[in-house]
Amino acid sequence: MSTPSSSMWGGRFAEATDQFVAQFTASVQFDQRMYRQDIRGSIAHATMLAEVGVLNVADRDLIIDGLNAIEAEIARGEFVWRVELEDVHMNIESRLTDRIGIAGKRLHTGRSRNDQVATDIRLYLRDEIDAIRGELKRLMTGLIDLAEREAETIMPGFTHLQTAQPVTFGHHLLAWFENIKRDDERLVDLRVRVNRMPLGSAALAGTTYPIDRRITAKLLGFDGLCENSLDAVSDRDFAIEFCSASALIMMHLSRFSEELVLWASAQFNFVDLPDRFCTGSSIMPQKKNPDVPELVRGKSGRVFGHLMALLTLMKGQPLAYNKDNQEDKEPLFDAADTVMGSLRAFADMVPALVPRREVMREAARRGFATATDLADYLVKRGLAFRDAHEVVGKAVGYGVSSGKDLAEMSLAELQNFSADIGEDVFDVLTLEGSVNARDHIGGTAPNQVRAAVVRARQRIN
Amino acid sequence: MSTPSSSMWGGRFAEATDQFVAQFTASVQFDQRMYRQDIRGSIAHATMLAEVGVLNVADRDLIIDGLNAIEAEIARGEFVWRVELEDVHMNIESRLTDRIGIAGKRLHTGRSRNDQVATDIRLYLRDEIDAIRGELKRLMTGLIDLAEREAETIMPGFTHLQTAQPVTFGHHLLAWFENIKRDDERLVDLRVRVNRMPLGSAALAGTTYPIDRRITAKLLGFDGLCENSLDAVSDRDFAIEFCSASALIMMHLSRFSEELVLWASAQFNFVDLPDRFCTGSSIMPQKKNPDVPELVRGKSGRVFGHLMALLTLMKGQPLAYNKDNQEDKEPLFDAADTVMGSLRAFADMVPALVPRREVMREAARRGFATATDLADYLVKRGLAFRDAHEVVGKAVGYGVSSGKDLAEMSLAELQNFSADIGEDVFDVLTLEGSVNARDHIGGTAPNQVRAAVVRARQRIN
Amino acid sequence: MSTPSSSMWGGRFAEATDQFVAQFTASVQFDQRMYRQDIRGSIAHATMLAEVGVLNVADRDLIIDGLNAIEAEIARGEFVWRVELEDVHMNIESRLTDRIGIAGKRLHTGRSRNDQVATDIRLYLRDEIDAIRGELKRLMTGLIDLAEREAETIMPGFTHLQTAQPVTFGHHLLAWFENIKRDDERLVDLRVRVNRMPLGSAALAGTTYPIDRRITAKLLGFDGLCENSLDAVSDRDFAIEFCSASALIMMHLSRFSEELVLWASAQFNFVDLPDRFCTGSSIMPQKKNPDVPELVRGKSGRVFGHLMALLTLMKGQPLAYNKDNQEDKEPLFDAADTVMGSLRAFADMVPALVPRREVMREAARRGFATATDLADYLVKRGLAFRDAHEVVGKAVGYGVSSGKDLAEMSLAELQNFSADIGEDVFDVLTLEGSVNARDHIGGTAPNQVRAAVVRARQRIN
Amino acid sequence: MSTPSSSMWGGRFAEATDQFVAQFTASVQFDQRMYRQDIRGSIAHATMLAEVGVLNVADRDLIIDGLNAIEAEIARGEFVWRVELEDVHMNIESRLTDRIGIAGKRLHTGRSRNDQVATDIRLYLRDEIDAIRGELKRLMTGLIDLAEREAETIMPGFTHLQTAQPVTFGHHLLAWFENIKRDDERLVDLRVRVNRMPLGSAALAGTTYPIDRRITAKLLGFDGLCENSLDAVSDRDFAIEFCSASALIMMHLSRFSEELVLWASAQFNFVDLPDRFCTGSSIMPQKKNPDVPELVRGKSGRVFGHLMALLTLMKGQPLAYNKDNQEDKEPLFDAADTVMGSLRAFADMVPALVPRREVMREAARRGFATATDLADYLVKRGLAFRDAHEVVGKAVGYGVSSGKDLAEMSLAELQNFSADIGEDVFDVLTLEGSVNARDHIGGTAPNQVRAAVVRARQRIN
Repeated sequence: MSTPSSSMWGGRFAEATDQFVAQFTASVQFDQRMYRQDIRGSIAHATMLAEVGVLNVADRDLIIDGLNAIEAEIARGEFVWRVELEDVHMNIESRLTDRIGIAGKRLHTGRSRNDQVATDIRLYLRDEIDAIRGELKRLMTGLIDLAEREAETIMPGFTHLQTAQPVTFGHHLLAWFENIKRDDERLVDLRVRVNRMPLGSAALAGTTYPIDRRITAKLLGFDGLCENSLDAVSDRDFAIEFCSASALIMMHLSRFSEELVLWASAQFNFVDLPDRFCTGSSIMPQKKNPDVPELVRGKSGRVFGHLMALLTLMKGQPLAYNKDNQEDKEPLFDAADTVMGSLRAFADMVPALVPRREVMREAARRGFATATDLADYLVKRGLAFRDAHEVVGKAVGYGVSSGKDLAEMSLAELQNFSADIGEDVFDVLTLEGSVNARDHIGGTAPNQVRAAVVRARQRIN
Repeated sequence: MSTPSSSMWGGRFAEATDQFVAQFTASVQFDQRMYRQDIRGSIAHATMLAEVGVLNVADRDLIIDGLNAIEAEIARGEFVWRVELEDVHMNIESRLTDRIGIAGKRLHTGRSRNDQVATDIRLYLRDEIDAIRGELKRLMTGLIDLAEREAETIMPGFTHLQTAQPVTFGHHLLAWFENIKRDDERLVDLRVRVNRMPLGSAALAGTTYPIDRRITAKLLGFDGLCENSLDAVSDRDFAIEFCSASALIMMHLSRFSEELVLWASAQFNFVDLPDRFCTGSSIMPQKKNPDVPELVRGKSGRVFGHLMALLTLMKGQPLAYNKDNQEDKEPLFDAADTVMGSLRAFADMVPALVPRREVMREAARRGFATATDLADYLVKRGLAFRDAHEVVGKAVGYGVSSGKDLAEMSLAELQNFSADIGEDVFDVLTLEGSVNARDHIGGTAPNQVRAAVVRARQRIN
Repeated sequence: MSTPSSSMWGGRFAEATDQFVAQFTASVQFDQRMYRQDIRGSIAHATMLAEVGVLNVADRDLIIDGLNAIEAEIARGEFVWRVELEDVHMNIESRLTDRIGIAGKRLHTGRSRNDQVATDIRLYLRDEIDAIRGELKRLMTGLIDLAEREAETIMPGFTHLQTAQPVTFGHHLLAWFENIKRDDERLVDLRVRVNRMPLGSAALAGTTYPIDRRITAKLLGFDGLCENSLDAVSDRDFAIEFCSASALIMMHLSRFSEELVLWASAQFNFVDLPDRFCTGSSIMPQKKNPDVPELVRGKSGRVFGHLMALLTLMKGQPLAYNKDNQEDKEPLFDAADTVMGSLRAFADMVPALVPRREVMREAARRGFATATDLADYLVKRGLAFRDAHEVVGKAVGYGVSSGKDLAEMSLAELQNFSADIGEDVFDVLTLEGSVNARDHIGGTAPNQVRAAVVRARQRIN
Repeated sequence: MSTPSSSMWGGRFAEATDQFVAQFTASVQFDQRMYRQDIRGSIAHATMLAEVGVLNVADRDLIIDGLNAIEAEIARGEFVWRVELEDVHMNIESRLTDRIGIAGKRLHTGRSRNDQVATDIRLYLRDEIDAIRGELKRLMTGLIDLAEREAETIMPGFTHLQTAQPVTFGHHLLAWFENIKRDDERLVDLRVRVNRMPLGSAALAGTTYPIDRRITAKLLGFDGLCENSLDAVSDRDFAIEFCSASALIMMHLSRFSEELVLWASAQFNFVDLPDRFCTGSSIMPQKKNPDVPELVRGKSGRVFGHLMALLTLMKGQPLAYNKDNQEDKEPLFDAADTVMGSLRAFADMVPALVPRREVMREAARRGFATATDLADYLVKRGLAFRDAHEVVGKAVGYGVSSGKDLAEMSLAELQNFSADIGEDVFDVLTLEGSVNARDHIGGTAPNQVRAAVVRARQRIN
């Protein structure tokens, strides 16, 4: 008995593959999504083979025309993927031979599926990185623009989810910009490691044909070559590094989501999310749920999981290629999809956020948010910081029991805690006084926010 | 503008859902696989509502007939799933109303999607557990049968992948049986926690209708009720526990795979995997690769990742239901599928393993595998164990440098290391002597293996 | 050159262990914490050896007395742990031989460090499980008592952190009880798998001495024997299962913490955490931070990480024992410590929580929390649920724009949305009406809470 | 009642911290290891404060002298760490005030523990990165040197742990060099993100004092400033990125370990590990276990776990600092320690590896390792690659059944499979012919290995 697979490698096999095993071990169900990269790689390979004289020009042209036709078939949805042909590579090569005959059988000269798939993944990932960077930029732009509009909007800054000090909403938004900016830096760094070409490594040791890897690399836009064939076909650290960077993006979006969910609650009520980013309830007619941030928060888990899956996958394998590696693709694809979708949703949503400025301001006015300012005031009058801290702590204790914020106490009341307090104390106890006073690089003062906006625009261009 | 969604919950919304958001937040692409459970649950719910008088009998019958017809539509592949209807529940309910009119709108009385989806997942998971247990049993049976056949086959036992002591292959196989048996025990334990009914919890607080949850539970085969509505709709610990148990199954299969890959190497050559569980190479004509164990080993990573995904997903959520939970399904489904597929492949493959008994025996004969037996021999002649250990260590050192195993040394040579050694030492230095001597419960002696086989058969029935 | 190690196993070694390697590979720094279990196991082993005649009674007594004396030395802090003796086992055995001479060298007869350490870990873990179950019970009791006191306290129930329906605080607390109760069930289940004895498996294959494992098991309180020696010394699934159960405990505590942090914020202000569970700020004098829940929330990460560490550790190992397994202990110990500390803090804190009943009630009064009740009211008047949902959705839309909750609208206003609404509607729109109406097992009605409290007390005793 | 803590922030507290809570929430047990960085940071802060006029010169000098004295106390082991002072910062500041009086209380002016700890961690991590890079370089040098010596040594190259094609051992070692080289690149990249200064961010919003952050940054060797105070005190992505890079290092070392363990087995017997990197068995006198690679392989799990712990830790936190973040340090410290220790062990061990060249060569000679060469030979004679593959597959099938490798067949036997085979076929079927033919960048030919060695030396300098 002969199965289609055995036409590819069945020479030494006495028995056909078990049907369930064929299904279980096939990858074409998910690796077909790399068909464009696979074909691009094959065209470059054939072009190089012809240039070094391994393939004649007529065969090269047949191959290239055939592959282009197949790409069009796939794009039109007419291509029939066959599980018994295992993967995207065999499916396309088999179809090529159907179309152009023996020339198709020459395409695989000087390469192996091991270096072919490694090349496809890198090309695919490079495309994904570039697309993700586009969404990151869109999100960063949205944050910068909103920060500029809200440079003077005052809200409570929290630590431990307790009111800490007043901050400007623009400043808060730029914290998210900084997070995302580092995420983008990481992609820039790792793209260098992704964009090296494994092709030419063949199965594991290189090939006996007089290939010129520099030609292929140039045709495919690679920055450099993988310098060792065993390494090139067996390591996937670049994919894990991408998942790590993706996990950090999702971690940041999850934290941002956490804030949006809080802010959209009746208790905080700091922002309004437009209806189009929310959904309702099948039972409770009044509900308007912040679905997008909740879902993105939830999606962080799957990317963390994919990272863990890939680390686990690799860690026990001796060199070189092992079948375990087939499992590298689904987590990688899903990580990229999840990051893209989440960023797209955020890049759409952020510019549409409507801050409730009055609610934010009122929240900042309470909770003794300017207590640190009072301590600093006392330090400037000569107290050591630790002593000033103690004085203010007592004033706050009085405020908690009497129901008065610091700015609501009379001068006499304040002076009960320190004789150093004068009439001018009320300047530092205002919200504007507090934020304006933090006037250095990285501080929350509105003019620092505006300066940071200018720098941020430069940094992303 | 009106979207289909707004017909379900759009009363208070001024703006339609953004189209990308609708796609991004929909779950019907993956939760449709629970359609049987969803319909089973709806039929039970309608039956109960009629029994307590909330629904009239005519409506109940319309609903049940309609749902059965829809199930048949889906099974025939004729049902059109619509992303704008969000999920499996809304798709089916909407179709029901199309078919039977206003009675369809009465089905959702006294429940919410929150308790509905929690019920569906539990029913689905219960089915999966039962199916997985079937494969576990098949694998255990295969291991027991093979162990019985190989009760006397001698192979080297390894620690640190160094030859340690001779063991019987049957004994080694029963180690895998014990692993898998515990995996099955865990499923039995967690099934109890899965098989409790959340239905009746409605959105989060229960319902104002005079429902009788015991009726529904009985119809659906649940062992008990979730006793708190807030808990019932919000926790997914049962799903995480299933993923933990799945991760342990995959960990065990990964270890087993590691051994099969080693054993199938030219260097070990302990077993032959039938061709039908192997595949070849597109470039190297001589290759026969142990794909199934390699792939299963690799698949362990994805299940570990899903476990991590679900833990991450849940850990930050306040009560009760949040949209994050929508992300619970894909990891759970994929974990169950991966475990099922991997077990099926192993249950098929294990009975077909062909041990190379002579190779195993020859490997055991080397590497000073009976050194511990020599030490025990000396202890029985009066040396303290630590002193005997030292004596044998020196004899081994001599063996390494002279190229002789212990059984290959002359009595005179052995007596150089201890005068207590007599002619009878060669009995304990044979492989059979060694394995037969470990004759207690849990030991490797062939008659212990046969006794363990008998107990194992009882334990799984 | 001779190092102390080589006195234990150095016979065949030509070169002493590198000093850094000795330090790097030693485990005594962390496994010494199992010294009690190690000594308990050795005493049982010696007792059994004497009973079956392998050890004479005089030696047995010397060994037991010596071990007891060593345990006292360690407890007094006088024992000198030596890294060059590698681990807790060798340190104690070496000290024993120092104290009692050659009888000490006979203790290791018929066992190996492989089965010894597996036994120690199981004994240790069994003790930890029992201690953790004690804290779980204390926490459950605290939740039940508080739930009983707050059976009638009304708060908003949330989904998506949006006000959903009114619930009782007692009901909410019992949701946490149910979570924790399942955590306890899991420990009960896994303790069965922990409490099986590996001793007697020796290095990997059993031993040639006529041991009676049932004697040792009885002395050590094990419920059963590990039935296969290779399995017994090599698998650590029981430890991973414990880490899984611990991860679920921490996941639950993390969710509970998330709520406490929210509730302690100025925006929610639902509960007051006593000062003794909070700390202040070194810079902001007004701060009172909910440190305990924040820290417990953070600590969930480390336990998830330990679970992942152990799964990763095991998944690539062929049978039987490999040095990788030495890494099993630190994650396990830290998981147990973290769970114990976190539970202790929660068990102390929960009874001291002070709910702000008026704030909770006021929050529930807003946000259209009784919209579902209005829909149910309409259904009882003949509308289909989906139609009723739509009517109420429109009334809520009017409420959002006019600033009125449902109960604040006039009958005429309500009747604009449905002529079916009558004067009696105001009964169902009250908070008490709403919670009392959810009067079935698992529902939020105060009398259901009180009934659940009674059942909960029975279930934990 | 007053506790030491309350002297730092207790002004508003009515009740002392619970003693268990104080212990549970303290960090000084583990953050004391950053004391050098803490003191370095405080000296720079005081210097800057004096330069901008916030601190007078006399106070500055007192502070600096005091801190230097405290550093010496700690180094001498004389410092008493107090849990009730919570952390390394408070312990040192408190001791400073004890020593120098009120000037000590002025040190905390214009900063908070939030920016202080963020600064300490970054300084600490920067030191660790530099130390790790030193070990990476040592390991890379060892690999390059060994590769040069073994440029012509032939071994079997494996895929799927099946013999694939002959490779040179030098080439194989350079695969590991490439792995490690990328690990080093990642550290270089992430060091840029670590080496930005958070100091000046104070609690979360910046400070009201006229600080000049550029002065402090220059004194501490930072490359730049964190540009947003909220981001600077709350994000720990740089620590997670370090753990990701560490996880990849450990993944690579784990794979390398996997090979060493295999190679050290009796079945492979490819390398000899010197005794000083191995240990023995307490029961089996003949054992020599490859402890170092086994342990390193096992240690990969803990670093993966720490990565997961930190991702989990961060993902749910709203801005800015929350107590959860205290949990960032232990995983980070342990990840750095584990990577350092593992690299040190490998950097010591690699130069001492002794390859068994004859065993490797003999293994390569078998297993039809030159089958691909035969296929390539046929392609050069005009067959299409796929047809040549089929021909060779059949020859291999004959070889398996007749027990002959390809080079052992007669010309007549070979010609049975293809008439295109001539006498010159035996040149390509030799091991030397095979490796020499793979003569392009990245290929396994000895002269390519030597060229790669030259480039590698340049790349690391």
